[in-house]
Parts: sequence; structure tokens; C-alpha cells
Amino acid sequence: MGLFSKKHKRADTIVVPAVGQGPSPIAVPSGDSIEGRTFEIGSEMLRRARGHKTGILSARFYSDALMEWSMKDHEFKVQMFRFVDAFPMLRTPEAVFEHLSDYLSQPGVTVPPVIAAALKAGAIAKGMAAKTISGQITGMAGKFIAGTDAASALPGLKEMWDGGIAFSVDLLGETCLSDEEADGYAKKYLDLINNLPKSVASWKSQPTLENDHLGPIPRTNVSVKISALSARCDPIDTEGSINDLMKRMLPILETARDRGVFVNFDMEHFGLKDFTLELFQRCVEKIDFQAGLAMQAYLRSGPADAVKMCEWAARRGKLITVRLVKGAYWDAETIKSEMHGWPSPVWPRKWMTDRCFEQMAAIFLDACPTAPAARGRGDIATGGPRPSGVKLALGSHNVRSIAAVVAGLERRNLPLNAIELQMLHGMADQLKFAAAEMGLRIREYVPVGEMIPGMAYLVRRLLENTSNESWLKAGFMDNADAGTLLKVPGAGVPDAPLPPEQADRHMLTPAVEGVGDGKPFYTEPMRDFADGAQRAAFAAAVQRATVPKVANDRTPEQAGRLVASAEMAFQTWRDANPRLRSGVLTRAADLMRDQRDGLAGVMIKEAGKTWREADADVCEAIDFCDYYARLAVPMFERERMGKFIGELDEQWYQARGVAVVIAPWNFPLAILCGMTAAALVTGNTVVMKPAEQTPGIASVLNDIFQQALKEHDAPPGVLQFCPSPGETTGAALVRDARIALIAFTGSKAVGLNILEAAGRTPEAQPFVKRVICEMGGKNALIIDQSADLDEAVMAARQSAFGFQGQKCSACSRLIVVDPDGPRAAAISAFTRRFVEATKALVLGDPAKPGTDIGPVIDIEAKNTIAGFIEKGRRECTLELAMPVPAGLEAALGRSFVGPHIFSGVKSEHVIAREEIFGPVVAIMHASSFEEALRIANGSVYKLTGGVFTRKPAHIEKAKREFRVGNLYINRGITGALVGRQPFGGFGMSGVGSKAGGKDYLYQFVEPRASCENTLRRGFAPEL
Amino acid sequence: MGLFSKKHKRADTIVVPAVGQGPSPIAVPSGDSIEGRTFEIGSEMLRRARGHKTGILSARFYSDALMEWSMKDHEFKVQMFRFVDAFPMLRTPEAVFEHLSDYLSQPGVTVPPVIAAALKAGAIAKGMAAKTISGQITGMAGKFIAGTDAASALPGLKEMWDGGIAFSVDLLGETCLSDEEADGYAKKYLDLINNLPKSVASWKSQPTLENDHLGPIPRTNVSVKISALSARCDPIDTEGSINDLMKRMLPILETARDRGVFVNFDMEHFGLKDFTLELFQRCVEKIDFQAGLAMQAYLRSGPADAVKMCEWAARRGKLITVRLVKGAYWDAETIKSEMHGWPSPVWPRKWMTDRCFEQMAAIFLDACPTAPAARGRGDIATGGPRPSGVKLALGSHNVRSIAAVVAGLERRNLPLNAIELQMLHGMADQLKFAAAEMGLRIREYVPVGEMIPGMAYLVRRLLENTSNESWLKAGFMDNADAGTLLKVPGAGVPDAPLPPEQADRHMLTPAVEGVGDGKPFYTEPMRDFADGAQRAAFAAAVQRATVPKVANDRTPEQAGRLVASAEMAFQTWRDANPRLRSGVLTRAADLMRDQRDGLAGVMIKEAGKTWREADADVCEAIDFCDYYARLAVPMFERERMGKFIGELDEQWYQARGVAVVIAPWNFPLAILCGMTAAALVTGNTVVMKPAEQTPGIASVLNDIFQQALKEHDAPPGVLQFCPSPGETTGAALVRDARIALIAFTGSKAVGLNILEAAGRTPEAQPFVKRVICEMGGKNALIIDQSADLDEAVMAARQSAFGFQGQKCSACSRLIVVDPDGPRAAAISAFTRRFVEATKALVLGDPAKPGTDIGPVIDIEAKNTIAGFIEKGRRECTLELAMPVPAGLEAALGRSFVGPHIFSGVKSEHVIAREEIFGPVVAIMHASSFEEALRIANGSVYKLTGGVFTRKPAHIEKAKREFRVGNLYINRGITGALVGRQPFGGFGMSGVGSKAGGKDYLYQFVEPRASCENTLRRGFAPEL
Repeated sequence: MGLFSKKHKRADTIVVPAVGQGPSPIAVPSGDSIEGRTFEIGSEMLRRARGHKTGILSARFYSDALMEWSMKDHEFKVQMFRFVDAFPMLRTPEAVFEHLSDYLSQPGVTVPPVIAAALKAGAIAKGMAAKTISGQITGMAGKFIAGTDAASALPGLKEMWDGGIAFSVDLLGETCLSDEEADGYAKKYLDLINNLPKSVASWKSQPTLENDHLGPIPRTNVSVKISALSARCDPIDTEGSINDLMKRMLPILETARDRGVFVNFDMEHFGLKDFTLELFQRCVEKIDFQAGLAMQAYLRSGPADAVKMCEWAARRGKLITVRLVKGAYWDAETIKSEMHGWPSPVWPRKWMTDRCFEQMAAIFLDACPTAPAARGRGDIATGGPRPSGVKLALGSHNVRSIAAVVAGLERRNLPLNAIELQMLHGMADQLKFAAAEMGLRIREYVPVGEMIPGMAYLVRRLLENTSNESWLKAGFMDNADAGTLLKVPGAGVPDAPLPPEQADRHMLTPAVEGVGDGKPFYTEPMRDFADGAQRAAFAAAVQRATVPKVANDRTPEQAGRLVASAEMAFQTWRDANPRLRSGVLTRAADLMRDQRDGLAGVMIKEAGKTWREADADVCEAIDFCDYYARLAVPMFERERMGKFIGELDEQWYQARGVAVVIAPWNFPLAILCGMTAAALVTGNTVVMKPAEQTPGIASVLNDIFQQALKEHDAPPGVLQFCPSPGETTGAALVRDARIALIAFTGSKAVGLNILEAAGRTPEAQPFVKRVICEMGGKNALIIDQSADLDEAVMAARQSAFGFQGQKCSACSRLIVVDPDGPRAAAISAFTRRFVEATKALVLGDPAKPGTDIGPVIDIEAKNTIAGFIEKGRRECTLELAMPVPAGLEAALGRSFVGPHIFSGVKSEHVIAREEIFGPVVAIMHASSFEEALRIANGSVYKLTGGVFTRKPAHIEKAKREFRVGNLYINRGITGALVGRQPFGGFGMSGVGSKAGGKDYLYQFVEPRASCENTLRRGFAPEL
Repeated sequence: MGLFSKKHKRADTIVVPAVGQGPSPIAVPSGDSIEGRTFEIGSEMLRRARGHKTGILSARFYSDALMEWSMKDHEFKVQMFRFVDAFPMLRTPEAVFEHLSDYLSQPGVTVPPVIAAALKAGAIAKGMAAKTISGQITGMAGKFIAGTDAASALPGLKEMWDGGIAFSVDLLGETCLSDEEADGYAKKYLDLINNLPKSVASWKSQPTLENDHLGPIPRTNVSVKISALSARCDPIDTEGSINDLMKRMLPILETARDRGVFVNFDMEHFGLKDFTLELFQRCVEKIDFQAGLAMQAYLRSGPADAVKMCEWAARRGKLITVRLVKGAYWDAETIKSEMHGWPSPVWPRKWMTDRCFEQMAAIFLDACPTAPAARGRGDIATGGPRPSGVKLALGSHNVRSIAAVVAGLERRNLPLNAIELQMLHGMADQLKFAAAEMGLRIREYVPVGEMIPGMAYLVRRLLENTSNESWLKAGFMDNADAGTLLKVPGAGVPDAPLPPEQADRHMLTPAVEGVGDGKPFYTEPMRDFADGAQRAAFAAAVQRATVPKVANDRTPEQAGRLVASAEMAFQTWRDANPRLRSGVLTRAADLMRDQRDGLAGVMIKEAGKTWREADADVCEAIDFCDYYARLAVPMFERERMGKFIGELDEQWYQARGVAVVIAPWNFPLAILCGMTAAALVTGNTVVMKPAEQTPGIASVLNDIFQQALKEHDAPPGVLQFCPSPGETTGAALVRDARIALIAFTGSKAVGLNILEAAGRTPEAQPFVKRVICEMGGKNALIIDQSADLDEAVMAARQSAFGFQGQKCSACSRLIVVDPDGPRAAAISAFTRRFVEATKALVLGDPAKPGTDIGPVIDIEAKNTIAGFIEKGRRECTLELAMPVPAGLEAALGRSFVGPHIFSGVKSEHVIAREEIFGPVVAIMHASSFEEALRIANGSVYKLTGGVFTRKPAHIEKAKREFRVGNLYINRGITGALVGRQPFGGFGMSGVGSKAGGKDYLYQFVEPRASCENTLRRGFAPEL
């Protein structure tokens, strides 16, 4: 059947026209200005490229039926490409067919009739359809990926070479999650660098490709992704990461130096940019290899980085090559910065990137040596002195960009071979031929690798080529005129208004005039530890931080007096202007913002949080204040119901009374702050009882609230600090007949005890107590067959072991779907990667940025966790028991438990049922997604849960049937953000409240209503 | 000081120009058409009227400073007239000043500088200001009210007579609330009719005034308000009310017949229209007096009623006079019909009323006899036969209306004295003079009475004269041209679009497509018992109704099996389409609507509800279904938070599990239905345990729900009916570990027991129970010094004794503010009126429409109430103990308790503290409004409360400080409507839920949230 193919034949091999050996001068009419030259050069290149009518890959690419449909219907394209992404994980034709039909039946997708017919067909047709689409995708991948490894790609590379095009080999790979994987990638690079030179040595001479204006250049050119060479590639611990990376990088570079191989450092996401620059410079300073580095013009920092790089090369006397690219992660960078509330690192408009490309090119051309071996320096062959500076390689398919640089060359009297043009394998061949004809040196960027890692690369290419902003699409599919295609970047582009600020765009709360900045709430951005300045400030603050010494010594009698004071203050506080109360919260938020890193430092030292965990805790505390401040004000404004003339119906809320807040130690700032802020802003007065393990940070919070209260002239006594033992004083507070409201977060046992105590209403108590109760979790993460394992393993590791698993949201059950059985390939592969990835975690002092796993909260916790581990050992298979480094406990005076992973866990096993609150995770097997849901739902806890899947129907099913308070799809299951993921569960996890959600504050108030008859003598003002 | 007065002098007496004795023919140019004649006559009248430049009241009225400001600023006018309304209740200059400054400091009021200065001045100035405004108001009242009684008005009446104007005396009075008051008014009318003829007999002869075209007419003309003559003037019991009225009316009419006095029946609000017409006809048929009746052209029913009246007169051979008026209660009728959801009885536009006036006048003119004593009938003096038909009197100040009727006269060849013109005392004197000059007979409608009742009349006149739709204002203040003033009603008026329907206008809920009629919720209109058809249908349904026999015999074991069935059904029901669940509710509502009166009949017979109480109960049940059906659907739709690209944050809700609904007997349909509907529509399954006293209506409700469920293919077992004893089966249900949710309404004792039981979470129970608990009340109504006593007494009586006081919202404490002490004038006056008004209530069979007080629920209730009465007798003063009519209990086999009123009650007395749940009310004294609030807030119950006051600051203070769940201002404190007055209290009254409010359903569900990472390979669909 003709599914997914069109009738005309496709050529099976790339037809590369012969190109002359030496550089042929570009023949264009001379122009007055550089802009004129740019147009001349560009027009010529365009004309030549368009002349290549046959055997041109791009044209064929677009004429493919699948691509044609994708270009026509955006929704079809989205779903089809998402299917393509998931495709390599699908092991059977049934799975392929199911996923395909699932994706294409998503809302809004218009399915071409021929596909629709196939989707409706019977079993045999389904098998054929699956086969056809599989072939189609494999074929498409084959256009862009030269082979599964260098050996299989070699014939293609030689053919290219013979046709006048050089190469740079790129090894496609999955995310590097473990030392094992990093070692594997290092080995592959070493193999390549060791063996490729031998293979290409016999190829015919191609002078254009083997020389630039400064002399010979290597035939073998390898592109390296640094993130593949370490599982700890995290700028938060730049030194540690560089050390780990160097272990594998140095042998590679030494070999490259010895074998005369050019090594290019690819540039990945912005978070690694500074790190990569730093690493590159250190490597170049250390080893005298032929070094290249990719730099991205879509970064706002592009020109500044370019200048710095040129200055560094000059200062150090190094000659490097910069591959200047536009940048391939614009969407991801834009999205990530928005999600974090960070400034976007990339230009908001495509033309700005194009402009930046030309600016950066000019900087690099200015730094380009004009002559070889100046002042007696030798050349590469002799190893003698070389000129220093930057050679430019252009990684672009945009003729305007290329032409502008060529014009820049001329202006600087640099020869054409001072630059080279790098283009992607499988794309824009007509451009390559045209440029080669015009005498430019062309190098293809040639990825090799397996299907699974290849799909990411494939999808990126597919999206790129179908984007409406694609120059190639404009030039060769839409056939725009030269004037449009070659114009100055941004020329004639109207000034589009900027999008509204994030707070306004997302409207997570209403904006309340006079509260905070008068804008809607927006989550406090966490620290960007890729930024050296933020890193340094944080480190200094952590070092300075001291934990206040606070005794948990308040007796029940003292607590009773605190309640009395809070009761005294209640009426005034309840009747205060709601904006004043909200002002106290936003002021407290500001005070916390002012000392963010210091607060984190206290928690790092008191609770053993790692940097990011502590920073997130502070952000959440700030968020609770800013969020509740905005939600509270409207609650106290009378809301009119209906518009009856003569009848004024209104509803509003009032505070309940004196609240006691009983908080846990695991979010010693955020949760304490959130419950207290909610009670205060709604007009209740509060007795704040922190966890016995973390009174220090609580006392800092108390100071902050007291200052904010004082600055707002709140009545004295509104907030009472009561560090005390829970069993005596806490229990007494809960039972105090003057306490109207108990906000508790903690264990199930204590929570149920509080609920029972509060259920009793003694004669002297003129109200029913309200209990807001959040308890434990036994949270499951389901990994199904189509899951993106790179992401699933990372998310599982973070969810299970972040803050040593001491979160009520922590993942403690990993349910892996494998229809082939509990020891079959899928679950085994996941388990292996997960175990290996976990081994990469670092146990240590949480004050150090490189530490992933700090101490557990205290020795009791350690013993309890150890008890569970012991039970697990008896019932299940222990896959990993990470040891605690010798001497660590003694050195820090804290208790440590290393991550533990069990497999073969069944629902009836203790470690699958009970909350452990430590770094222990149970891997469970399910034969189907449905069984996985049943297992997940089997717990009495209903807090968080997660699913990794790329099957749309499974996502929908999980939303319907995975019954937890907070469900996470294709991400980790901890780290709920205020206003975005209202947090809380039901069942044994709590009473169904949602901290950081729009309903939360209603639990702290009582509703009131009034009905006023505004008629007088039969007349009402409104009529 | 010149406060409130302008500099020019005002004439102290009315200057009435002498008018010729006989009718002078109207001298206007003849026209072709009746419209032409109308214009000619109108122009002449307008010209003459405008010629009267001196001594013209209306002009002076408008030139008054206060009026001038009122015309300029709408808000000032509203507040000033509201102050005027409250003014007579203010006993001290301080009170006057305080109220004035309070009203004028309301938001939006622009106060003229001279008043602003006085409001800011010191104590002496304040006293003067109070004196000035008092004088001003008294003066203004004097313009419209001729005297405090007939005797004091007599000199004025004679002066008018001498000047050529006749009169009809109207006795202003407060609302008649008791037999005592009705007797008092009857006596006044009798005095008037007995004595006025003697006084006027000596006046000079005025032939124009003493004859019409059929012969002589009486000098003495009295207008009677029928509602003054009975405290039971309620069309719901038309026969009973007519009987009560006739007792007082017949002697009056007999005397009038004997003294030759003309008696006019005034027309009051629409609710009494049919009743008044019926009464009038019966009176005329019974007694041969000179009879007149006012009829209103603003009623849509006007023309039809006019025809009926003419036909009746012809059929019965009666000659009556109809005073055709436009109608004075347009605002009140419009507002009332909207509040009740009834069709408006009045024309929506003023010009329609004007058009209707001319139409009705034509009908009456057609029925007007053309000659006296036709076919040998005698005239009035001889008592011989008279012609039958209708004589027309025009009660209008609109020259166009008058001229059109005069033209109609000519067309029918009726003489000018076949009609008479009636105008209000104190208004439009220039028109009276002009009309008299043109030969028309003029009669003034002359109110006499005291200040307090007079204010209602005064305010009506003030508003009328300052209205933008006033013809007088247009004619004599704005000086519009004759063409405008005399045009055909509605001519040139653009067709204004109709306002949106009530449901859409009030938006009490969102409109949900596919739910009910797809419109927002609107409260079900109660029966309009003024409508004979509705009355008859209701009576028939009550008679037919039988109470199903249901045994409360389900054992705990049986109940356990019902829970098991409900649990079986839960998952399917929870996961059903929310629109289907809402469909079940709207269908149930429709089924109830179909058998409304029958349902009421069952409650009347089972629970002893009176007609209106039973009808309201059914409406509320319907409302709960229709309201919750619309609120529920959006709760189950995922709501997105923020608009993050690559991050899809959503929140929604799910059902909790099996609910048990435990309902009380006092709203045996509405509350049971409301709690059940809420649980069902949110996807919970329900075990419904009705009160042991009212299983019959509960079983009818169960049948309705089962039918609606079945029609929607709901899974079997969703709703389980469990009539059973509370102490055994109810208690077991509450403790059942499978019950997730308890919705309870009932006593404090049971409620607290349930809360305590539900607070315990046994090991087998995988959730925390949720309890929605509404308990009792000890509700206070505060009457302050400026209260409108007519309204306060009526509202207090209804709130205290409606359904025998067996409502949790019932008023059981009346707190009366009297600064002069607990036995001073204000509290004594209130107490007396309240006691007397209560005596007017009828104890009896609730199946009869005239019954106000039915039986209490059972003998246990009677005994409990008797115990409280006994305690009250020991501690306080018993003001009223209404006896139960002999034989009533035996005849009906039910227990009765008559209303009891205690005075001198202190906060510490038992009857001021404990919920009695019977017709017993405690009157308590407070020296100030603040003290009243303290007393009111002193109860542990926080359910309903009310305030009667006309001081704006007190209204605001009550909203702030009267801490109850439902506060009512200037109305009764029972009868909360779904969606308009969300109902429920806190303290010992409940857990702070609001039945019929927007938050209510959230208690029946648990929140869920999800966060989906929609990024794949760095790309998200949205970007």
C-alpha cells in the first residue's frame, strides 16, 4: 500500500556533482558598500543553488508525503513528530500502530484520508501500516544520520570527501546519567580519534579541504559533547564537574593531539555555556590540540562572549576555530527561562539572532590571523609556533548570513579559505554545492548513532525544516525572492509589542492594588547556579550562616499563656484592614528575599539540605507569602450575589480565632511559613510550634514575621513563637479549648491523633475546631514502555533521593511496565540505568555545592530507615546500597543513609506499603499500564504520583484514574510550586487541602452573608 | 441661620382665585379628530395653568432649597428622602442631627456647602441644624397633609370649598397589624362619616361641586384603605379575610349610606387588587351606599378589569364611581415581582401606563349613563331607582391624560360634569385653577394624619415630584413645549430592548450548556396566593395529598448492607459524566415542579407546615437541585493555572466516597434534598437517613431521585433510602468505616456527637471522615430607635412564630434599643404592637389557608417547649401566652403550643441562652445599639441575626460586628433563598458551611491537581 509515500520515485543515493579542486573566485558584480557586496554574493549563491534541480535532498525532503501533510496542518505535525520521538522505544508493530493512532486521534488533528483509512483497517492492514511508518521514519532518520557508528558511516564520508565535502563526526548519545555511561562515551570518542585518521589517510587529496589560509588542516574532525563525558556535569559545582570531566577529556585530547585530529567542543544548552567556555579554555591551555568551539548567535551574550574569547586567545597566544552557529535550542531555552522566571538568554526574534550572527562573525574575523607563521612561527606540521587568534567556521544554511561574512572577508582582505562553511548532513545540499562552486570550503556535520538517541536529533531537524522561520523553507520551498531572502536582518520588521510580563501573562492570582507590587503573583525564581556570581554569593552566605540556638523548652503552661495573648490580640487583628495583613506578608516576603541565601544557609546547617533544596525551600516560603497576600484581600470584600433592586445580598469571610501551627522539619521554613502566613493573612492569630529538629530556622522566620508585623503596627501578640516538645506542649495546644484552628503538617500518626482530639468539643468551647491536616505519602512513579528513559531515570533519581527522600512527596515506589515479565528487557534496562545513575550521586557535606545526598535529619530517622532497609533485604532484592563514605558521619556529627534500591518488590511488602521517609526506593513490576495504575492506587496514601509515558492515552488515563492529590506527567514528582501545583493529598495523606492553591485560605475562615432590604416605603435607590 | 431655606419669601396660605359657579364651556378651536381636540383642550389648560404665576404650590415646592439640591444630585436626593422617612422616629435633636449627617456622609453623596458647614459645626450649631431641618420637613409635610385629623383639617377644607374645590378625606395610618389597630381605624372612619356631614352642612352652596350630570352628589367624600380595617387582610384566605374585614366595613358603609357620605375604596398594592375588587362588589351588592373605587392604569390587567367592572355594574344595576389613577406603587410592584420571580403586574414604561389610562377611561366613559333617572328611576336624595353604570373620576395631574378624556366626553356627547377631576392636596394647584376655570369639577384628595404614617405619603410625593418622568416637572419646572407635553403616549419613543431575563441578569450561577434550560440558576418562584387559580389548585392538591406510610425500621445491619451497595456503585458514579449527574438533579427538580403542590400537601399533613411554609420548602428543594446542578459541572473540568509553555498545570475535583445524609424534620424536603443533591451531583453515593418524624415526604423524595437516576441510567445503588432510628442505626452509619462523608443538619448535641465519632479514624478506614454539620441557633433581632416599626413588628412576628418557631433560623431574641430604659416609651411601644400583632395570628389546622400557627412536630417537642416556658415564667415577665383553641388538639390529633412572648429577659436567663425550637420569644432591652450587638453576639450560636434600623452607620456596623452566618437588615431573619442568601452559621451553629452557596459543594469533594511536562526534546506544541 502506498501509505506515507508519494508516487514519484526517489533517488536512492545522493548525487553529488563534481566540483573543481581549487577555490574559484566568486564572480559577482562589484558593489560600493559591504551591504551591496553581501547582496551580490548572496544572489549568486542563491542562483547557483536554485540551479541544482536534481538530486537535491532538501527538495526531496519537503516533497515527502509525511512532510507535506506536516507543513499543511500544525496539529498533525506536532503529533506526528511527537510520535516520531517516541518511536524507537516501541518494540512491536502493535505498539507502533497503537501509538500512531493514539497520537493522530488527539483533539484538533486533521488526519489525511489515506492515513485515516489505515487507522481504521483490520489487523493485517495494521501490521502493514506499522511496517510502513517504521520504514518511513527509519528512512527519514537515514537522511540525517550517516550511520549507527563511525565504521558504518565511513563509506558515506568517503563519498562526500571525494565529492569535495569534508566532515566533522558527531556521536549521538543518550543523556549521560552515570559514570558507566560517561566511560562508555569516552571510549567511543577515543576509538574514533584513534582509528579514523588511519581510515581517511588513504583518501585522495583534496587541497581545498585540507588547507586554510594559514596552512594545512586535519582531515579528521570530531565534534564532542562535553555533557557525555561526565554524569556530574553541573555548573553548581564547576570545579568538581571540571575535575570529573577532565578525567575523560584529557586522554581524548591528548590522543587527538598525537593523531592530529581536530576536536570541536559542541555548545549545548545555555546552562552549560559558561562552564563549556571555561572548560574549553582550560583544555586548550593544558593540551596543544587543534581546538574548535561552537558558539551560538541566538544568545544575547553572544557578542560579549565572542570578544572575551578573542581576547583570551590573543592573551594566551592560542589559535582556535570557532564554529559560529545560530543555536539549536531556542524553544527549550525560551521555555526553561520562563518556567524558572529567569531572564531569557536568547533573542526573542529570529532576525535578532541573524543580526547577532553577523556581529559575532565580524568580531571573529577581526581576530583572525591574516598570514601563516608570522614572525617565524612554524605551522601545524612542524609543531612550531603558530599565529594566535580565531579562525571562523560558519554553521548556517542562511545565504544572507554566509554572504555577509564573505563580504566581511573581502573587506578585511582575508582570502576565501580563511573561513569554512559547515552544514548539517542531509540538509541543504544545493547550498553546499553552490558554495563549493564559489570556492568555499565545506564541511558537513555528520551525526552517527543509534535510533533512540538519534530521534532527538531527527525531531530537531524535522521541526527546523518545517518551521515558518526556516530560511531554507523560505528559499527553496516557498521560493521567496532574493530581496527578501537577503535583506538586512530585521529590515522592514515592524516593532512588535513585547509580551506582557510573566505575572500578568499567567495570572496565578488576581492583581490586588496596594498588595506587593500590585501585580499578580509569580513564583520566586530559584537561584541560577550556572551563574558564577549567584554561585559565589550563595557559597559565601552559606559559609556565614549560623543556626540560632533555640531550646524547645516551652511548657504546656507557658503555651497556655501564649494562647491567652494570641486570644487577646484576635479581635483587633481580625478586624484590621485586610490590605494591612497582606502587607505584612509581602513585607515578610521581601525580608526573606533580602536574606535568601542566608536563610538557605541556616537550613543547610540545621536540616542538612543541599544547596538547591535549601534554595527551593526559601523560594517556596516567599511564594506562600506573596501568593496568600493576593488571595486574601478579595475574601474580605463583600461580594454581591445577583443584582436585585431593593435586595442587597452579600457574602464574605472572617477569621476563625486563635490558630496553632504545627510544622514539620523537612520544609522547616516553607511549610511553617505557609501555614503561618495563611492563618495570619486571614485574620487569625497564631501560636507557631516548629518541629523540634528545626527551631533555629523557625526562630529566624518568627523574627521576620515579628518585624513585618511591627512595621505595620499590628497589635502585639498576633504571632506567638512556641518551640516546644510535641508530645507534651504540642498535645496540650491541640486540646486547648481556645484554639479554633489547627494547621498541621507531619506524620499520619500525629495527624490522626490531632483529628481525634479536635473532634471532641468540650462544654467550654464555643466552636468546632477546624483541622487542616497534611500527612504522609507513599508515592509511585510509573514508567511505561514508551517513556523517555533519559528523563525518567533523572526524574526518578531526584524524586526518590532529593533531600535524602525525606519529603512527603518523595518517590518511594517505581512501577515499571514490562509486558514481557518482571525480569525482561525493559524493566532490566531501566533498573540498570537507574542504579548506575544513583551511584553517581555524591554523599557528603550539604554545605558543599557538589553534594547530592546530605545527612538524614537525626539518628532516630537513621535507625527507622535502617529498620525498613532490613525488612526490604528480607523480602526483596537489594539492587543498591550506597555506602556512606568513611569518616563522613564523624566529621560532620550527623547521621547518613546512602540511597537504597530494591527490586522485585510486591504490593504486600512492607517497603511498598509504609512511608519510610528516607532514601529507599522500591522497584515494582507491572505487566501493563493498567496494572501499574492498580498497584499505584493500592496505597492508602494519596499524595503525589507520576507517570513517564509518551502515549497520549496513558496521559489521559493517568489524569482520570491515578488518584493522588498531585499527579506529575513526564517529570519528577516533588517540587510543587505555589500557585502552579497546589499541593496536598487525600486518603491517609490529608484532609484534601491544597497548600499554595486557590482554595487553601478558605479553610482558615468562616463564611458570612448578609441580606439587606434596601427598600424604603416601596422605593429603592437603584430603580 | 439660613440653612435649608432660600431668601425669597413664601406665601403662608394658598391663594385660590375665584372661579365662576357654573360650568363654563371649554373654549378651544374645534378640531377634526379626537386627537386634535385633545391637543386643543390640553393646550388651553396648559396655557391657563401657566398663567397662574402667583401662589402656586408646585412652583414653590420646586424652588425650595432642599428640593433644588435633590433635583441636582441623585444620591443626595436618595439619602435625603431616606432620612425624611426615618425622621419622625427620631425623638431628640441629637438623633435628628446624627441621622442626617450619617445619611449625607454615605458614599457618593455631594453635600451642598451650606449643609456641609453645618454638619461640621459645634454642638450648638448642631442643635440649630437639627431644629432647622425638623422645621423644614414638618413644613414640607404640611404642604401635602392637611392636618393631623379631620377636625384640624376642617378649616382648610372649608377654605378649599369656598374657593371651588371639593375634597375626599384620606386617613393616613400605619400598617394595621392587630385587631386593636383595625378597630381603631374603623372607629376613626366611623367618626369621620358620622361627624363630617354635620360640619360641612353649613358651607355655602357650590353647584358645580354638588352635582354631576345625573344629579346631586354628596359634599362629604371619604377614601378608605381596606387594609386598615383588618390585621388579616390576606388573599390567601380570601373568605376569612373578607369576613374579618366585613365586621368593620359594614358598619362604616351603613353609616355612610345613612349619612349620605360617598365612600371610595382606595386601591393599594397589586396583591390586594383582586381581593379589593371582590370586596367592593360584595359591599355594593350588600349595602346601597354611594360607592367609589380606585383603579390603576399602570396595571397590565387594567383594561380587562375595567371591562369586568362595567359588566358587573350593568349586570347588577349598580351605579359606581371609578377613580382612575395611574398608580402610586410602580417601584414597589416592579421590585416585588422581580424578587419573587413573578411576572410584573405593571407596565414597564411610563407611556404605556398613560396609554392604558386613556384606554380604561374610554371603557368607563362607554359605561357612563348619559341621563339621570332613566325610565323613572329616582335620584339619590329620594333613594329611588338610579341609572346603572360607571361614573369616571380622573386622578391625574397629566394635562394630556385629562384632555384626552375631555375630548372623549365630547365625542360621546357627555357633559363636562359627567366626570370629575381629582388631584392631590398640595400639588399642581395651577392645574386645578385652570381646570376649574374651564368648567371641570375638581376634588382634592386630602390626607390627614400623624407624622409617622404621614412620612410614607410624603416621601412618595417627594419622589413623584422629583422624578424625571413626572409630567408636572416637565410641564412646570422644565417648561417643555405643548407638543411634547400633549403628544400621544409613546409617540416618538424608540423601542428600547427588553432587559435580559432574570436568570441572565442576576447570574446566580454560571450558565452550563446542557444543564437544565442552559441558563443560570434562578430561584423557583413561590406560589402567588393572591392569584385565585393558584390558590384553588393548591387547596385541591393539599386535600388530595396523602402521607406515605414508612416505618423507621432499618436496623444497623440493614444499613450496613445499604452502605455496601452504595460503595459498590461509587466508582461508576464518581466517574460518570458530570453533566449526567447534573441532569439527574435538574430532572429531579422538574419532577418536583410537576407535583409541587402535592409535595407541599404531604408536608402540611406530615410536619404541620402552613401553606406558605410548605410551598417555600418545596421551592427550596427545587432550588438546591437546580443550583448545585449548575455549580457542579465546572468543578470536574480541569482548570488550567497559568499559561506556561511546556507546563500544563491543572486542577479539578473528585468525589469522596459513600456519604450518609442525616436530615432534620423541620425542612423535611428541602434540607434532605439539598444535602442529598449536593452529595450526588459531586459523584458521591448516598445513604439517606431522614428524620424519624418525617419519613413520608422523604420517601417521596427518594422516589423522585430514583426515577431521575433511572432515567439517566445511573448505576444501581447510587442512592439508598434508610428510614431508621437515629440512636441505633444513625449512630452506626456515622461510625461505619466505609462512610467517607457525613452531611448532617440537626441539633447541637447530635452534631457534636457525630463530629467526635468522625474524628476517630480506625485502622481499617483509609481516609479521614469529612463532616458537614449544621446545628442550632439562638437568633436575635435588634430593633433600634429609627426602625420602621410597621416592618419590624411584622418581620419579628414571622421570624419568631413562622412554622411555630421550629426553624434553626427562627428569631428567639428580640433586642430593643431604648436609651430611656427598659420600661420606657420605645420598648413599650414595640412590645405592645408586637404582642397585639401576635394575637392576630390564627392557630389551627395547617391544611387551612387561614392558619398561621400549626402544631409543633410532636408531643416531645411540646413538652420540651413547655419546660422552657415554665423556666421563662419563673425568670421573666410573660407578655403573651396565646391559648390553644379548645378541641383543636383532639380534632387534629396533634400537639399545639401557642406563641409566647416574654419581656424583661436578661442574657443570663435560660430562655435567652438555650435553643427552644418553638414559638417562644424573649424581648430584651439594650440601652444602645452597641449594647444590643454585645447581647446579640453573646450567644454561642452564630446562625442568623437581624437588625431593623434606618441609620446607615448601624447597618454598616451590623455587617461588620454582628457575627452570625446570616445577617438580615430590615427584613425577617428566616427564609434564606438558595444562591441569594447562602445559609449556615459557625460557633455552635455549625462548621461554617453555606448551603445554597458557591462554596458548599467543595465540602463534598477532594481536590486533585496535575502538572504535565509537555516538552519533548526541548519542544512544546504551544511555542
